[in-house]
Amino acid sequence: MKRYSGFLIDLDGTMYRGSEVITEAVAFVKQLEKQSASYLFVTNNSTKSPETVATLLKSMDVPATKEHVFTSSMAMASYLTRTKEFVRAFVIGEEGLLESLKESGMMVSEDEQPDYVVMGLDRAISYEKLAKAATYVRQGAKFFITNGDAALPTEKGLMPGNGSLAAVVATTTGVKPFVVGKPSPIIIEEALKRLGTTKEETLLIGDNYDTDILAGIHAGIDTLLVHTGVTTKEALKQKEAQPTYTCESLADWQRSIEE
Amino acid sequence: MKRYSGFLIDLDGTMYRGSEVITEAVAFVKQLEKQSASYLFVTNNSTKSPETVATLLKSMDVPATKEHVFTSSMAMASYLTRTKEFVRAFVIGEEGLLESLKESGMMVSEDEQPDYVVMGLDRAISYEKLAKAATYVRQGAKFFITNGDAALPTEKGLMPGNGSLAAVVATTTGVKPFVVGKPSPIIIEEALKRLGTTKEETLLIGDNYDTDILAGIHAGIDTLLVHTGVTTKEALKQKEAQPTYTCESLADWQRSIEE
Repeated sequence: MKRYSGFLIDLDGTMYRGSEVITEAVAFVKQLEKQSASYLFVTNNSTKSPETVATLLKSMDVPATKEHVFTSSMAMASYLTRTKEFVRAFVIGEEGLLESLKESGMMVSEDEQPDYVVMGLDRAISYEKLAKAATYVRQGAKFFITNGDAALPTEKGLMPGNGSLAAVVATTTGVKPFVVGKPSPIIIEEALKRLGTTKEETLLIGDNYDTDILAGIHAGIDTLLVHTGVTTKEALKQKEAQPTYTCESLADWQRSIEE
Repeated sequence: MKRYSGFLIDLDGTMYRGSEVITEAVAFVKQLEKQSASYLFVTNNSTKSPETVATLLKSMDVPATKEHVFTSSMAMASYLTRTKEFVRAFVIGEEGLLESLKESGMMVSEDEQPDYVVMGLDRAISYEKLAKAATYVRQGAKFFITNGDAALPTEKGLMPGNGSLAAVVATTTGVKPFVVGKPSPIIIEEALKRLGTTKEETLLIGDNYDTDILAGIHAGIDTLLVHTGVTTKEALKQKEAQPTYTCESLADWQRSIEE
């Protein structure tokens, strides 16, 4: 079996399920740390800062600093500011997105026609924000969203996700958004730049075929589907493009590479 | 040409365009009044009360009282309370919808599992309202919307319409809403009950093929498409089911029936 030196690892369903830690995954990451492998947690969540995510992971005994965390907000910021300086954006989103964009030097503006309309999950969404976004998109701003997740799993059940809210602007304007988060390859390409490993030496690990695995396939890197979260074996059989590897848990995977 | 004794007449694009009155349409309605014909203005707008709509029409010199106005909110109220008494609804919407539902005897409730989730345009929309609606729909409440209009024409351009906002709940839950407003036949059936004429003796008049004319076709009544609003002659050619009649303006129509 091929040896990898870089790992892009999903969070929910891979490292934990809600508030429940997946202990095999924690043991696996500890092993990576011991071997001085490069790893980065890659999440579609746009609302949390990398510090907040790292604190949560540390509370679960996962070796993680904020440098180990890469959110869809961070991918958005680095992608949009790479090619052009001094870009202006109208932003719908929470603290995690606003911070990332401001840190990257983007001008966040309310009242001037922007280059981009950037949208992440915003639980303080209002009609005014949606109407403004629709107006700017119709006037030519490019429409980018951190992720297209339709629903957000919470303890109270599925709540509206960014994909559902972005559909308001898309339906109003007839303009389809560019998606940065998984299954888009953009977040993977940006994560690789951060991680510093090549596509050939990097493995993407996730539980969700439709986001994690497809993002890896779209970006052209090897993928490992771990059956600890969303995608069952049955569901996987229906898919045309298969992941490079599958395993029951990351304990199984660790055994298989040690054999 | 067939003589009709009942008329269901659209508003925006048929009686006026924004704040501009269509004088031929006003003359036509005055003629109807003189002949003591029955007429009802049928609108997908759910936010305004019939009194407010009548006041607007009167300011444009249209002979109209609140008894001449039938909104998608009124259609919703009469449709949902016809078959069952004491139904409970969780409502997202503005004054026009809330008033209509309360007047019909429906129990409007925030915190108990309702029979229906009823949604009309609400420019004070919030994440909490959308999340609550999604939760109730997932728990089995039937999901009804006053209209599925994607965008709302305003002086500032197209703004998000009820169809776009309802898409948030539909996408989150995977449940498609029942639509009461045009092009659904429900609003037409309810309007006919209010008007008191039969399908055979009633003509529907509107400018928008995709809402007005389709509603008439779905309900099985004769339709007149007037080219003073949305649907051009070119666009009409592409449609499979054609309206019963078309005309340039209601002055042309009046001439043709007087000949």
